[in-house]
Amino acid sequence: MKTVVVRNIVRADAEVVKRLGALGTSTVHEAFGRFGLMKPYLRPVWPGGEAAGTAVTVLVHPGDNWMIHVAVEQCKPGDILVVGCSADNTDGMFGDLLATSLIARGVVGLVIDAGVRDAKSLREMRFPVWSKAISAKGTVKATLGAVNVPVVCAGINVVPGDAVVADDDGVVVVSKKYAAEVAIKGEKRQADEEGKRKQLASGGLGLDMYKMREPLAKAGLVYIDEPEAD
Amino acid sequence: MKTVVVRNIVRADAEVVKRLGALGTSTVHEAFGRFGLMKPYLRPVWPGGEAAGTAVTVLVHPGDNWMIHVAVEQCKPGDILVVGCSADNTDGMFGDLLATSLIARGVVGLVIDAGVRDAKSLREMRFPVWSKAISAKGTVKATLGAVNVPVVCAGINVVPGDAVVADDDGVVVVSKKYAAEVAIKGEKRQADEEGKRKQLASGGLGLDMYKMREPLAKAGLVYIDEPEAD
Amino acid sequence: MKTVVVRNIVRADAEVVKRLGALGTSTVHEAFGRFGLMKPYLRPVWPGGEAAGTAVTVLVHPGDNWMIHVAVEQCKPGDILVVGCSADNTDGMFGDLLATSLIARGVVGLVIDAGVRDAKSLREMRFPVWSKAISAKGTVKATLGAVNVPVVCAGINVVPGDAVVADDDGVVVVSKKYAAEVAIKGEKRQADEEGKRKQLASGGLGLDMYKMREPLAKAGLVYIDEPEAD
Amino acid sequence: MKTVVVRNIVRADAEVVKRLGALGTSTVHEAFGRFGLMKPYLRPVWPGGEAAGTAVTVLVHPGDNWMIHVAVEQCKPGDILVVGCSADNTDGMFGDLLATSLIARGVVGLVIDAGVRDAKSLREMRFPVWSKAISAKGTVKATLGAVNVPVVCAGINVVPGDAVVADDDGVVVVSKKYAAEVAIKGEKRQADEEGKRKQLASGGLGLDMYKMREPLAKAGLVYIDEPEAD
Amino acid sequence: MKTVVVRNIVRADAEVVKRLGALGTSTVHEAFGRFGLMKPYLRPVWPGGEAAGTAVTVLVHPGDNWMIHVAVEQCKPGDILVVGCSADNTDGMFGDLLATSLIARGVVGLVIDAGVRDAKSLREMRFPVWSKAISAKGTVKATLGAVNVPVVCAGINVVPGDAVVADDDGVVVVSKKYAAEVAIKGEKRQADEEGKRKQLASGGLGLDMYKMREPLAKAGLVYIDEPEAD
Amino acid sequence: MKTVVVRNIVRADAEVVKRLGALGTSTVHEAFGRFGLMKPYLRPVWPGGEAAGTAVTVLVHPGDNWMIHVAVEQCKPGDILVVGCSADNTDGMFGDLLATSLIARGVVGLVIDAGVRDAKSLREMRFPVWSKAISAKGTVKATLGAVNVPVVCAGINVVPGDAVVADDDGVVVVSKKYAAEVAIKGEKRQADEEGKRKQLASGGLGLDMYKMREPLAKAGLVYIDEPEAD
Repeated sequence: MKTVVVRNIVRADAEVVKRLGALGTSTVHEAFGRFGLMKPYLRPVWPGGEAAGTAVTVLVHPGDNWMIHVAVEQCKPGDILVVGCSADNTDGMFGDLLATSLIARGVVGLVIDAGVRDAKSLREMRFPVWSKAISAKGTVKATLGAVNVPVVCAGINVVPGDAVVADDDGVVVVSKKYAAEVAIKGEKRQADEEGKRKQLASGGLGLDMYKMREPLAKAGLVYIDEPEAD
Repeated sequence: MKTVVVRNIVRADAEVVKRLGALGTSTVHEAFGRFGLMKPYLRPVWPGGEAAGTAVTVLVHPGDNWMIHVAVEQCKPGDILVVGCSADNTDGMFGDLLATSLIARGVVGLVIDAGVRDAKSLREMRFPVWSKAISAKGTVKATLGAVNVPVVCAGINVVPGDAVVADDDGVVVVSKKYAAEVAIKGEKRQADEEGKRKQLASGGLGLDMYKMREPLAKAGLVYIDEPEAD
Repeated sequence: MKTVVVRNIVRADAEVVKRLGALGTSTVHEAFGRFGLMKPYLRPVWPGGEAAGTAVTVLVHPGDNWMIHVAVEQCKPGDILVVGCSADNTDGMFGDLLATSLIARGVVGLVIDAGVRDAKSLREMRFPVWSKAISAKGTVKATLGAVNVPVVCAGINVVPGDAVVADDDGVVVVSKKYAAEVAIKGEKRQADEEGKRKQLASGGLGLDMYKMREPLAKAGLVYIDEPEAD
Repeated sequence: MKTVVVRNIVRADAEVVKRLGALGTSTVHEAFGRFGLMKPYLRPVWPGGEAAGTAVTVLVHPGDNWMIHVAVEQCKPGDILVVGCSADNTDGMFGDLLATSLIARGVVGLVIDAGVRDAKSLREMRFPVWSKAISAKGTVKATLGAVNVPVVCAGINVVPGDAVVADDDGVVVVSKKYAAEVAIKGEKRQADEEGKRKQLASGGLGLDMYKMREPLAKAGLVYIDEPEAD
Repeated sequence: MKTVVVRNIVRADAEVVKRLGALGTSTVHEAFGRFGLMKPYLRPVWPGGEAAGTAVTVLVHPGDNWMIHVAVEQCKPGDILVVGCSADNTDGMFGDLLATSLIARGVVGLVIDAGVRDAKSLREMRFPVWSKAISAKGTVKATLGAVNVPVVCAGINVVPGDAVVADDDGVVVVSKKYAAEVAIKGEKRQADEEGKRKQLASGGLGLDMYKMREPLAKAGLVYIDEPEAD
Repeated sequence: MKTVVVRNIVRADAEVVKRLGALGTSTVHEAFGRFGLMKPYLRPVWPGGEAAGTAVTVLVHPGDNWMIHVAVEQCKPGDILVVGCSADNTDGMFGDLLATSLIARGVVGLVIDAGVRDAKSLREMRFPVWSKAISAKGTVKATLGAVNVPVVCAGINVVPGDAVVADDDGVVVVSKKYAAEVAIKGEKRQADEEGKRKQLASGGLGLDMYKMREPLAKAGLVYIDEPEAD
């Protein structure tokens, strides 16, 4: 029913996506009301990689990467390829050849709810990838899926064109229509944090800075000096 | 019943803790009669970090890091913060702001049976953390837990003030009252190993060095020259 | 029934093993008809390590590494030690002393369906290890297993003397009798890939290079311009 | 951003939902083009339970079932409550009191991407539940989520009012707009299967019935009489 | 250091333990301030079993059940045997012979953080067991552990003589000194629930019974009639 | 390389297989020197099922059950179908139609390292199945594998014609050539157990029956009367 390729998708604004990337996943996730974070089993293939882009989505079946080849053609500079899979699978669906092709098209990263291979080459090419597994097991090209339809990837429903931000802490997806609003909220949040960091570094306590002592006491927290005999 | 903060805890001797840290987790674990090792799902956030300190313990509930903020105030130089959680949870309960605060107080590491975030910053700050997950998902501050009561963390019951040693091989906890005895045993063990390493490097066989040939034969081990037809 | 040590095993040809190692796991796995790949839960203890050798096999029981000590004596230069375990276990069965001993005998790597310890030392010694876990938990020496009998390791049946290739993408095992044939096929495959990489880097599409457009259309793939209303 | 309760949702047609339930999950999943199946970690709390209904959706946070209480009021006869959770969690968010309340409102089942409790009572009440875990751990009522917004549950994006079919084989969700079409396809499929079952019971071979011999030969399948020497 | 058998332990009051058993795990867990619940991976070997008793504790090592044999002698009528294991292990450490022996001594159940075997016989004997796995794999008798020292079992620290309550929802441990207090609180809670169940069965809403409407509105919950365009 | 169907396999002796089945998995596993047990993640689809037969083996790829259809034709009365899969997969590869076909050919059970569907029908038909998952997700028929070659299933290498015994405790595989010897050893073991069961039921202690007191004392076990202060 969904074996289609949607060609012209509406993408989140590139400038807004860039600002979201500068905030990082933790701040974006908070600013988006704590929505949109993929499950933490998705891990970066190499540490330190960072990416922010607009989602081109792919739905594949286990052991089959045909639709990833189809999706490459739909990618534009600034996109991130987001691959959902119809069942649990750890096969290496993506490797250095596909990465070469994506880089040639200006794609800034890959997020895949399955496995990848050529981990060493991906690290050397500095192409950032978030995956569920690393596996030398290649795939066939036999079953149709879809490109640029909404897909569930690591527990999140991704709509084509959504903003995707990824770093060492995970992958967050922000709906197009909220992206600008989230960027503004996040930047305000980040500015607040800078001041807090300085206070904490010079020995200030969060208990005082965040005025927690009174609500803690109200909630019933008791301080005692002697450890209870156990 | 346990929503308390215990203020004055008895800590393992700082000098002894330092000696335990010099031994490393494998040796300490052996010297402690093979007790006290946390489950191996606890992993360092960055490779190569090492820490040895006295436990300040925290009990939190999933998705809520309120008590970690409370615990910071109870920490002294040389402590390690040990966080147990009342249910399985991978949320990012700890990040660079809390790390900044702990460093300002002289805390030497964090061990947490849940997730952390700001992994990149933690690596750059060289603040060593052992956690169950990395996740950008932040937490609320709504539920009371406890500070400095015994907590179970990754399968081990940690009593406040216990000695904690952590490195790339995991996290070991030694009861205060046994710490000095374990340090002595471990140092003896380590001295023995140095000699063995040299013998093995020059081609000696463990079979001979450990006099295993006779007990192996007694247990029924047979050497044959032809592989059995399968 | 199998508590034996088989002394004289037939090993895959050293020159062929070297050629397989130069190909890497992904290419070898494809060239071997997509057989022989261990489960992806087996991970390198440090990134970037690579090894190709002939299998000396060990069967151990959980929590007991006695047979690994027995196996060391059976190893020759160019071997890889492959350890299967009779039940799920994450104990640290192997550490820097055993690594020192293996290096002294010319062994090029370790593949173990259980845990290892001394991860930091293994990284510093540059001894490549693929394991299921890292754990400071040591083991006893109490139960007999076997050396150089077929063992199942991470889902693959390994026959003593088989060729083993391992890198960041996993571990592949090639039967002795097929090793030369697989090397030839893999080298042909690799040569083909070089040309493709260049085409892709200059913007060529896999859709055209692999002539996928017609089979995709036949299979029913439809391109549409408007995203379907959801 | 999504802390809302949507009151008037459009539900899939009750008669169509009933027909889908008569088909069972396997047939519905096939008829829906192999889409919509939740991950298999979702299991029935007691074997043999079956349910088909229209989705009232709830988004909760780990350890907090406040929104389930809110959702009860929005349920009508023939509904199934579908609960997604913002992070991995196994707490017992639902028990016999909530089941009593749902039964009083004519709800036919519960699907929850978290834990439930009172498993014995649920079995005795014959109220069918599909969950990720069983746990006595209760929850607090402290954090807002949402009711009747799209939620991801066990990997599937569920839109309020969608048709949900569940049995011992799992849980399938069919979009409202496709429900009638899927029912027709599924019924055709089921009729076909009845004839096949009879043929197979009397010794017919699928190889002949499905005319597989020729495509197998074309794909390269070879029959040999002697097992190859290994 | 802990290879001891402690012979005379102080047990929770038998009458109180019986009252706790009548309450069930969910109520006991709530009444104990939501502490003491073992992880939900511990599952009953057969559904419907229930047990309440005083803990005799055992610490074993993976693949070795020697200490369970030692522990049998320390059991008295009304006890539950609680087995912790020093590392993850699924071996079948307990079967119908040990069950026969425990029944002869009046023991009412087994809780084990490892595997058991003879599942069918245990079901037919109606001896209730909560375990992490079922496995035909037997164990050796080679390594000392301890009996009646505190052990961690499925995430909970169990002190010998503590009250243990187990049913289809899991296993809860209550410290001796709190047992009577928890029983009183739990009975009060249970009485309250009976009235609520009747109200809910006749169509009353939890929203009204628990007076949730006002706090929900304060927290910011909004009701809307039109689903938001997605 | 292995896309073959081997037609004439040598099967373990039917009478011996029957005797192994009467012993059950635990006894057979012990009698076979504690070898041959599949990993415990393989579970019966319904409790109480038992099967003993000769292995017809199948190698499939994830998401594809074509070769199971091919294998049916190779089955004879008394066989058990054993399905290995080339990668982790939970798809429902087998359901009531294939079960109907196997029953018609006299096959006594299925062991599959993947998922099955129609769980309710399988239970009602009393056809015993051991699988890794239950899932409504069907499969395609597109990729060749092999029939009656050695396959790894749940960690065990199964050779066509091997004896397979399965019950609630798991699945054990015995090599053809050892089957008769294992049956004899197992029957001796079972006779011994009968006497022990009676002694234990009348209150005898394993400590005395197995003469464990002396070796325990030698290993260093100490009995104390006072619990150590903690």
